[in-house]
Amino acid sequence: MSSDAPTGLPAPPSPSHGAVGMVRTASRRVVTVEPFFMEFIAGVEEVLAVHDLSVLLAVVADEDAERRTYERWARSRLVDAVMVVNVRDDDDRPALLAAHGIPTVMVGRWDDEPSLPSVRADDLAAMNEAAGYLLELGHRTLAHVTGPSVYLHTQARVRALTQVCASYGVVPVTVEGDYSDDAGERITRELLERSPRPTAIVFDNDVMAVAGLHVAHELGIAVPGELSLLGWDDSPLCRLTQPPLSTMSLDVHEMGRLVGGAVLETIEGSAQVKGSVVTARLIVRGSTAAPLPA
Amino acid sequence: MSSDAPTGLPAPPSPSHGAVGMVRTASRRVVTVEPFFMEFIAGVEEVLAVHDLSVLLAVVADEDAERRTYERWARSRLVDAVMVVNVRDDDDRPALLAAHGIPTVMVGRWDDEPSLPSVRADDLAAMNEAAGYLLELGHRTLAHVTGPSVYLHTQARVRALTQVCASYGVVPVTVEGDYSDDAGERITRELLERSPRPTAIVFDNDVMAVAGLHVAHELGIAVPGELSLLGWDDSPLCRLTQPPLSTMSLDVHEMGRLVGGAVLETIEGSAQVKGSVVTARLIVRGSTAAPLPA
Repeated sequence: MSSDAPTGLPAPPSPSHGAVGMVRTASRRVVTVEPFFMEFIAGVEEVLAVHDLSVLLAVVADEDAERRTYERWARSRLVDAVMVVNVRDDDDRPALLAAHGIPTVMVGRWDDEPSLPSVRADDLAAMNEAAGYLLELGHRTLAHVTGPSVYLHTQARVRALTQVCASYGVVPVTVEGDYSDDAGERITRELLERSPRPTAIVFDNDVMAVAGLHVAHELGIAVPGELSLLGWDDSPLCRLTQPPLSTMSLDVHEMGRLVGGAVLETIEGSAQVKGSVVTARLIVRGSTAAPLPA
Repeated sequence: MSSDAPTGLPAPPSPSHGAVGMVRTASRRVVTVEPFFMEFIAGVEEVLAVHDLSVLLAVVADEDAERRTYERWARSRLVDAVMVVNVRDDDDRPALLAAHGIPTVMVGRWDDEPSLPSVRADDLAAMNEAAGYLLELGHRTLAHVTGPSVYLHTQARVRALTQVCASYGVVPVTVEGDYSDDAGERITRELLERSPRPTAIVFDNDVMAVAGLHVAHELGIAVPGELSLLGWDDSPLCRLTQPPLSTMSLDVHEMGRLVGGAVLETIEGSAQVKGSVVTARLIVRGSTAAPLPA
């Protein structure tokens, strides 16, 4: 894009810009059935569209490709700002983006001292609520199927679960997953072969929880009679299982709107480094109950 | 992007370009659990990335916003080509994009004479297989919960179902849905209150089928004993329901790769107008069976 192009007039065909556009047109209701990211983007878009800004989502395979994408965007001056999701330990993306002069908003980072404008999910508070609920029901053999351990929010949830369990004298089992249905099935199967068998499993997303429920059905283990399952993210599919899944629910659309606001402020140079904090809340449905008496 | 920018060096901060970037980094396996579009984009990206091209996905709310997005992209010369999905009757997007000089690939258009490079899904052949299977099982009271009727692929499926049913002397019931879980629940409930009650329902996507199964469970109607349910799109969740859903399965990733190839050829000016055709195939799982004897 050349900055001197007159607005309002179509530009002549251009040389390669390293970009291919695709528009996903759907009502908010339909977008909702695709988990987390579609809903999140719809929320961001709702705020940005008023200012004639679009979210441009690139889908890439790994961190190297992500880095190359930022470099390409910087060369082409394609974007006004970048939203960084799934913050990692020693994350080099903020520095890379700063070196390229691209304003950045951090999304979902949980720690106390963000160095950039951010909208953070409070995973410590959320897991305290989730684990506290299961412990209060009487569960003492708990397992946690996590997302990738490189993410700060995964680390925060593991730490929170361990801490709240410790106050009940309980040591939870933690197994790393990758948010896929395959991982949810495989890890649940492993956990249910253990002795003692867990009476409750917390999953870090909804897809792994649905897969875990499927395994329990296959093994003939009653949910919630013999096994409580608690999901995370509360996509619409969580209500459609038998039994419907208890889950930690975040207003992902509202989180997207907050991020959209932070992006606008960042572009205008008025963003607060502190940012906003959002917290998932427990929704109790049919997949959790007190454990059977020993 | 200015074509004379030196590569490998950061560009100076730019004035507003109407774009905010977000990178969704995830393994192919994780992307897969988000239905259709994420998988489709991953397939396109696999082909384009080799040529240093990215898919840029805008998520917008309606057709006006889609049109404004194309106009913005044209002004900013943001994209080398556009992929048009969900082709409608009297679709004005190809003409709009042509007026802006943006090369275009049509995705999922089913009809016989595409005027632009295209990768088409053969919905007639797929529905022939789906309906033929149910009719051969002995079903004579069939219902079809469709996607939005403005889409050519919805119209093709309705026409195919009506035709193949007619050859068995059957008139199917067709109700328009919108791909959402809400529509799947509401319409299934309506259908199951009819007299005679359908013994088989075909859904135009997986989310509506999962919602339909949920309603059958709630009403105590046995699947597949009293009611056969056939989904479409075969996202991983279709195998995780009880019973697992029979479904029409398209290799969406491969479709994305074909589209990526067509986009490259279009940019190079060597694209074939005819394009490729892909066809969904029946996967029989546990949600379909012969109807009970009358």
